[in-house]
Amino acid sequence: MSIPPDSVGAVVAQRAHFDQPLPLKSGAVIPAYDLAFETYGTKNAAGSNAILVCHALSGSHHVAGHYADQPGNVGWWDNLVGPGRPLDTNRFFVVGVNNLGGCHGSTGPSSPNPATGKPWGADFPMVTVEDWVEAQARLADHLGIEAWAAVLGGSLGGMQALQWAISFPERVRHCLVIAAAPRLTAENIAFNEVARQAILTDPDFHGGNFYEFGVRPVRGLRLARMLGHITYLSDDQMAEKFGRKMRNDSPSYGFEVEFEIESYLRYQGDKFAGFFDANTYLLMTKALDYFDPALATGGNLQAALARARAKFLVASFSTDWRFSPSRSREIVNALVHNGQDVAYANLSSNFGHDSFLMEDRQYHAVMRAYLEGIGT
Amino acid sequence: MSIPPDSVGAVVAQRAHFDQPLPLKSGAVIPAYDLAFETYGTKNAAGSNAILVCHALSGSHHVAGHYADQPGNVGWWDNLVGPGRPLDTNRFFVVGVNNLGGCHGSTGPSSPNPATGKPWGADFPMVTVEDWVEAQARLADHLGIEAWAAVLGGSLGGMQALQWAISFPERVRHCLVIAAAPRLTAENIAFNEVARQAILTDPDFHGGNFYEFGVRPVRGLRLARMLGHITYLSDDQMAEKFGRKMRNDSPSYGFEVEFEIESYLRYQGDKFAGFFDANTYLLMTKALDYFDPALATGGNLQAALARARAKFLVASFSTDWRFSPSRSREIVNALVHNGQDVAYANLSSNFGHDSFLMEDRQYHAVMRAYLEGIGT
Repeated sequence: MSIPPDSVGAVVAQRAHFDQPLPLKSGAVIPAYDLAFETYGTKNAAGSNAILVCHALSGSHHVAGHYADQPGNVGWWDNLVGPGRPLDTNRFFVVGVNNLGGCHGSTGPSSPNPATGKPWGADFPMVTVEDWVEAQARLADHLGIEAWAAVLGGSLGGMQALQWAISFPERVRHCLVIAAAPRLTAENIAFNEVARQAILTDPDFHGGNFYEFGVRPVRGLRLARMLGHITYLSDDQMAEKFGRKMRNDSPSYGFEVEFEIESYLRYQGDKFAGFFDANTYLLMTKALDYFDPALATGGNLQAALARARAKFLVASFSTDWRFSPSRSREIVNALVHNGQDVAYANLSSNFGHDSFLMEDRQYHAVMRAYLEGIGT
Repeated sequence: MSIPPDSVGAVVAQRAHFDQPLPLKSGAVIPAYDLAFETYGTKNAAGSNAILVCHALSGSHHVAGHYADQPGNVGWWDNLVGPGRPLDTNRFFVVGVNNLGGCHGSTGPSSPNPATGKPWGADFPMVTVEDWVEAQARLADHLGIEAWAAVLGGSLGGMQALQWAISFPERVRHCLVIAAAPRLTAENIAFNEVARQAILTDPDFHGGNFYEFGVRPVRGLRLARMLGHITYLSDDQMAEKFGRKMRNDSPSYGFEVEFEIESYLRYQGDKFAGFFDANTYLLMTKALDYFDPALATGGNLQAALARARAKFLVASFSTDWRFSPSRSREIVNALVHNGQDVAYANLSSNFGHDSFLMEDRQYHAVMRAYLEGIGT
């Protein structure tokens, strides 16, 4: 496999240990924790060229490049990050981090609970977007980064970027909020709840302590992912890519794969259920549900965002029905009414919510232009 | 409980037995079968005032009225059907029928298989909309109805009405297709497939033969119904009715009900899983998937509908995203291009796909006006 010249190439995952207890929004406290992270590019002497990339529901710290022994394991936002790519690692020092509660190396439900020596399982505390930002701030301290040149992310990652601008106004110069929303709707929560119930009611879930039983709730995780995929794609894209295409020339009138869309969903579900941790999935969906920065200001998003000092880029995608463009415009409107500095792009794309992961020319041109304007 | 004067009042379910084997579209044959049905109003001497009401995914023959010993068990379309109601039983003889494969009295997977004496279970053959219409035609024969004054239904019921107009052009004078589509999209099939996989992978499903094990796949059925409900409601209605309302004043940071929408979905899921047959649910979703009258004419709906002799009313609802107004317009356009007689109403409603079951003033006025114009 040849490595493109604008790839960051082979990368190495790192890990930082944090000894200071982290008080969580729920009132619980994580006594100590590890965060898995990766960096690309070189930090300048002033530490002023650092950009934090936050991941979405199923992402990780592996944002770009590949591992030397796993050339096919390419980072989830590799098309955006690299030397000469829109997020240019010739200029920027880029940091990816696996969130607390994750299952890619950071402390999470499958990690040993120091109190028992067994996996945390159901005892792992609920983590919120605010908690993640607190934990990420300690990683910034650890890396000697006083303020991020930018914090960015898509979907749940965009919510973290937004929270950064609120929680640490002095530590974020630019905030890029892609395909996100200021809070979930009832319908968004409903989809999350069905996914959670699929996992929680899987007999192999064992109340979250399945590790001890040598099983994994793959059925529930598979259903959760299949459902998720419906909401990540657009109706249009599904129609174009799959339509009513059948596996065989004539119907089999059975419950095996009949339509290609069924095959796609089963494949995605099986693949995901094979490696992802069910407790992490539950935690991530709850973090989405709870995210609501305007709750503290009586539902007034404008007031909630008033303390931000960052400049903003907000981007949405025309066919995203999970977090539709109107949700992004709620953020934009609040910022505009505050007289804050915000650029907004609603991008025409056929790929629904997943558009934020795609290498679309117009989208990447917007990202490149904005990021090029950020001084280091 | 007082009975409103425009209710059909207490009704009695009936059952007809059919001895003649029914060849199905799949190639399988049902050797003999029962159909449960109800009638409201009085058939005139010529049998020319009969109207067939077809049910959707989870409906039954119990369309209107209540049972004498169950006054709270009111038919699913009671608000439409009764003396003086839009479908006026003073004029019309209305027939409701439980479809083949159902679980409300008609022969289905939970009925004894004559070959074994045990419930059919997984051996019950796949039934299609065309098969249902064939079976309903035999019920019409049994009731002495040469031609229906009208066949109507919402959602999957509307598809049956449409199929009647194609399969038996001479036996349908009016065809009312409400909140339906000429075929499912990939996204529609995707939702059905997730629901099916929830049932099929429930360990209590036992390959469809759970009856013998004394269990029911309630977990899968519950998930299927929860998911279904998301697609029946509109995003707007969910926002209005539930929004982000929480059960308690402050979050519990656990997996019990936090938001009211979660409570609603769990309640609906539990209720449904308590009585519905899982195999029937699977069959109904497959009937939806397979429905595609234009398949035989190379995808040309206009050609498929050309043989219909009925006059049509097509109705859609503004916030229905399961079968959006544009899907109804596909049917209307095909009929218009054929020069066929069609009226179309796109009704403003906040209730999404479920609108077709609601007692909306404008909607019922349209139904009343159209039905009043049907001669008996």
